Amino acid sequence: MDTREKLIESTRELLWERGYVGTSPKAIQERSGAGQGSMYHHFSGKPELALAAITRSAEDMRERANAEFTARGTVLARITAYLRREREVLKGCPVGRLTQDPEVMADPALRRPVEETFAWVTTRLSSLLAEGVRTGELTIPDPAATATALVAVVQGGYVLARAEGSAQVHARAMDGILALLAAAKNPAAATTDPEGKS
Amino acid sequence: MDTREKLIESTRELLWERGYVGTSPKAIQERSGAGQGSMYHHFSGKPELALAAITRSAEDMRERANAEFTARGTVLARITAYLRREREVLKGCPVGRLTQDPEVMADPALRRPVEETFAWVTTRLSSLLAEGVRTGELTIPDPAATATALVAVVQGGYVLARAEGSAQVHARAMDGILALLAAAKNPAAATTDPEGKS
Repeated sequence: MDTREKLIESTRELLWERGYVGTSPKAIQERSGAGQGSMYHHFSGKPELALAAITRSAEDMRERANAEFTARGTVLARITAYLRREREVLKGCPVGRLTQDPEVMADPALRRPVEETFAWVTTRLSSLLAEGVRTGELTIPDPAATATALVAVVQGGYVLARAEGSAQVHARAMDGILALLAAAKNPAAATTDPEGKS
Repeated sequence: MDTREKLIESTRELLWERGYVGTSPKAIQERSGAGQGSMYHHFSGKPELALAAITRSAEDMRERANAEFTARGTVLARITAYLRREREVLKGCPVGRLTQDPEVMADPALRRPVEETFAWVTTRLSSLLAEGVRTGELTIPDPAATATALVAVVQGGYVLARAEGSAQVHARAMDGILALLAAAKNPAAATTDPEGKS
């Protein structure tokens, strides 16, 4: 990894662990092993470096979700894969946690990738639910609202898991939302249940 | 308000706006109008003051939820009141946001009220859902999991609303989860719909 890359990855880790306010240029230098001169050679300062780090975490989040959303299988199977994906739950969401950073939210450039990523995931989930309604797999009156609830439950699951210090709480929240989604399955549709549970 | 009270309330506001890491003793003194000597007369330092502030925010959250959970009406009406309660959405949840504070999570004393509050709300919601199953109002296979999902969607709603800078996103997440809950209503039960929508 070259120095620029090390700086970005170290900043991603620090933002994830400590947030923007808690991440000092000095801490970035220590974590990356880059000197002060080298850091300011590659980046004008903490905001520009944070933007590169946040943008990459946001891209990462989209890529993973996109792989799940475009996989083969029923709509419910793809949503289940998204909800049950293995996450580093106790570290929190690297993108979602930034919404608690007043400095990130106050800076339109830093906030943009956060806002766009959640809008993107929600829109994609909404299309997926609408597809399920169209094909008769699901009965969902308002796919956009349900998509928002799905993204929210993933994010809130992190909050509850961190509060309790247990990743199982996130898994339980996913169980709960999936049980509700299962009730929205159209009983007349001949869909297969990927987990063979219902 | 006496000085002790002003110190606690100022700390609550600052923790809500800026988190623990972002709240300095100096900022607390400025916000409360209390001098340094006065602050250290009432509290041994920032951790003790923060504990008083967090404990009060946690009690507040429980009291509000308790009022909604024990109100008259169907289980669904009471859960709807809890989910749709007016919240200062764009400020985030005063208790939930603390889970993103590494210092709060690392200190067992500061973390305890956060953990206990979410456990309490989840347990109460779970009992409420179980009551709905018992009376035949709802068909919910696992009330504890669904309760966890409900608390998670409220918390995640804050995250999404802050990301988009719009309180409507929280309302949309509530619409989405309530539509799923409505599908869990037992069609055979003679329950009344408090909103007259379905």
